This record gives sequence, C-alpha cells and structure tokens, in this order.
Amino acid sequence: MNKYQQIAYEIEQYIHEHNLAQGTKLDSLDTLTKRYNVSRSTISKALDTLEKRGAIFQQRGSGIFVRRQRREGYMSLLVTSGFSGSFKGRTVRYDVLTVEQTVADEEVANNLHIDVNAPVYFVERLIYTDDEKLCKEVSYFPVAVVPYLNKEIAEQSIFNYLETAYKMKVGFADVYLVIDQLNEEEAAILDLPVLSPGLYMEQVVYLATGIPFDYSKIVYHYKHAKFFIQSVSE
Amino acid sequence: MNKYQQIAYEIEQYIHEHNLAQGTKLDSLDTLTKRYNVSRSTISKALDTLEKRGAIFQQRGSGIFVRRQRREGYMSLLVTSGFSGSFKGRTVRYDVLTVEQTVADEEVANNLHIDVNAPVYFVERLIYTDDEKLCKEVSYFPVAVVPYLNKEIAEQSIFNYLETAYKMKVGFADVYLVIDQLNEEEAAILDLPVLSPGLYMEQVVYLATGIPFDYSKIVYHYKHAKFFIQSVSE
Repeated sequence: MNKYQQIAYEIEQYIHEHNLAQGTKLDSLDTLTKRYNVSRSTISKALDTLEKRGAIFQQRGSGIFVRRQRREGYMSLLVTSGFSGSFKGRTVRYDVLTVEQTVADEEVANNLHIDVNAPVYFVERLIYTDDEKLCKEVSYFPVAVVPYLNKEIAEQSIFNYLETAYKMKVGFADVYLVIDQLNEEEAAILDLPVLSPGLYMEQVVYLATGIPFDYSKIVYHYKHAKFFIQSVSE
Repeated sequence: MNKYQQIAYEIEQYIHEHNLAQGTKLDSLDTLTKRYNVSRSTISKALDTLEKRGAIFQQRGSGIFVRRQRREGYMSLLVTSGFSGSFKGRTVRYDVLTVEQTVADEEVANNLHIDVNAPVYFVERLIYTDDEKLCKEVSYFPVAVVPYLNKEIAEQSIFNYLETAYKMKVGFADVYLVIDQLNEEEAAILDLPVLSPGLYMEQVVYLATGIPFDYSKIVYHYKHAKFFIQSVSE
C-alpha cells in the first residue's frame, strides 16, 4: 500500500468509526498535510482517491465533506475491484464450470486487442453471494499477459491472484450494460423461467499500463443484481 | 468555463481531431504546463477531469495515455450530465405529463434530506431519443432549492435550466440500479407487454455544495437502455 492509500484508508476508517453524517466537514488540506507530515500532493492524492470512491466530496474554496453510501446490498460499478471487493461482509463463492486454453475468435481478439487465434484462457464460472446465484460469467484472459490459470485459482478472485502472484496492477475497465430476456440455457443455469429479465454486462479490464487482460460477459440473476454508482461532476 | 476545463476541452478536441488510438502517449505534465503557460496544478486538474471522463489514463512515472470509448449508442453512467449530455448527436425530447407543487412524503423527504410535508415540485416525463421511448421519469425537486419550475422548463433539460437561470452547479449523484418486470401501468406507457424486463434507476443528485436537489425514479425501456461505465482504479 502506498503512503497516499494508507492515508486514504485511515481517513475512511475515521469516518466510519465516528459514523460521520453526510456533509460533515473534515479537516482542511493544510491541516491534514501537517498532521500526516507528508507533501500536499500526497494528501491531495489521498483525497482524490476518497472522492473517486464516493467517500468524500471536495468543494473548492470551502472544504472537504463526508459523503455516505446509504443503501446496503448494492454492488459498486465505479471501482474495478472484482466481485470479492464489491461484497464486503458477504460470502462470495465461485463455482468453476470450465478452465481451458483456447484461441481468440474475432470478438475476443477485438476486445482484448490481440490477434485472432492468439492463445487465451477461457474461464466459465457461476458466482454465488451468500449461497444465492448472482450471475454466470465467461471470461477470456490472453496467455501473453496471464501465463497460467487453473481451476483452483479460478475458485478464488482471479484479480487478487494476478495482483499477488504476478504483481499486476488492475487499472481501469470499460463496462457495458444492456437488459434483455434470458434464453433457455441462461434461464436453466440461473433457475429462472425462460424470458425472465436479465442484466447483461460486458467488461474489458485493463492493467494500469493500459494493456487489456480480461474480457468478460456476465448475465445476472435479476433478483440479486443491485448496483450503485456514485457519480462525480467534472 | 474555468481555465482547467478549457484546457481539458482542448486536449479532448485534439484527441478527437487526430483520431488518436487508445494507448497513444500524450505530452508530459511538464510539457503541457509550459505550452499552456499555467501552473502545474491547473494542468493536473485538467488531466484529472479527463481521467474521470474516461478520455485518458495516467500511469505514474511513465506518462499520460489516450483512452477511447469504443462503442456507439451507450449512455454514460459516470458523469452527472443529465439525458441531454448523455446523448450527444441524438435528439432528446421530453414529453411532460405533470408539473405540480406538492409536498414530500416520507420516501421523498428521506432522499432529499428535507422534512416530511416540505414543498416539492413533482415532475413526470416521458423521454424519447430519436423518437423512440427511452424511459419514464418521475422527479422531485425541493422548492427551498429550486424555487420555480413549469411545463416549458421541463420540456428541456432541467439541469441546464438550473445551471443557466440560477447559476447552480451540479455536483455529484448517487445512482441505484435494479432489474425487474414491468407492471401494467409501466408496460402500457412504454408500449411493452406486461412483465417485460425493466431497468429501474433511482438517483439523488446533489449540488456541488452537497445539497440534494433532485430525487428521480426512472424506468427504462429494455430495448433502448444501453449504458457504459468507464471505471477507474483507486
């Protein structure tokens, strides 16, 4: 954890421990700079991190204020933390249906910026939260970036594995959402009637270096898919 | 437009005019500082704005790179710009069903942080993009913050009106998404069969000062609701 991340974490802990209400004014940038004995730019980065995360808002000229997430059970779409990161306090279980090496078709190649027929890992998982079926996910990882995956690894968070085993840093993601009706196969796997509503998500996840390493297509059980986005102004 | 916003706009225009590919390296912070003859912190703010908007990514120690939005027809969930801002190049039309002053019930009061029975404007609109029904929206605006609304105002972007007429600055929003099946009334208004999939969005929008000024509940036509989120890492 970098210094600014550590400071961001401490400020967030402070907000939670004191159960500060939305709109509570926090100490100024100058005061925080003195307290933590670091540069203004480090404090500034910690505050930007907290703003992105929706924990504070900064109002130029007038201060830094607490922002609170007020509903429980919603999954954040803003921050690329994977399923395990989105469900703090809930059990996430991955039921791995397939892990195999295959080659990229045109769609996969296009989304991962690799050549058609380049080797990729194909991973198919059913994901449960608190023993309820949340979604079915298929993911493609280019072997050139992710050299090895197996069933044991896919039974946990693959993002955590890549960060731990390969020191990869997840950077950002393009996420696309559409709504449609489940086909027979999707309905069967999610235990729902055919034509039930489904939320379909496609995402391309990039390393901090800008290299795409994960292209996933996910279909969510409509009764268990609840999302929030804490958007910010420009 | 502030200086940093002007610079952000110019950099974004440059990327578009030169049709720069994702991953193209841009000039460094130092070079940009010299070129625009402003402080480093102004350039830094311009770059952070572009990063939030998903137009660039910054990689510490190695540079600033182009990020491209690669699919057409998806609505951004990241930036609180209202419908008109989300559909550049498409026609947005508001069919105003109701504009009236009423009082806040418990749900409205709770979301807007106002007292039960405080006066609010209630606005009900059907929103079309390119003459297709996109969604039905009901919105509540506290009269204490938004002193006046009428049908003519609601036929345009209310956000633009508030920014222009009252110099209000939209700050951030909490957005919640769930999926369910349309009831009879919703299905009728969206010209869909009962029990069709529906995307339900609730949002509380705040001024830059942190004061909530808009609580909206929106149900989207599933065939026309396509969203993207360009998420960022912490």
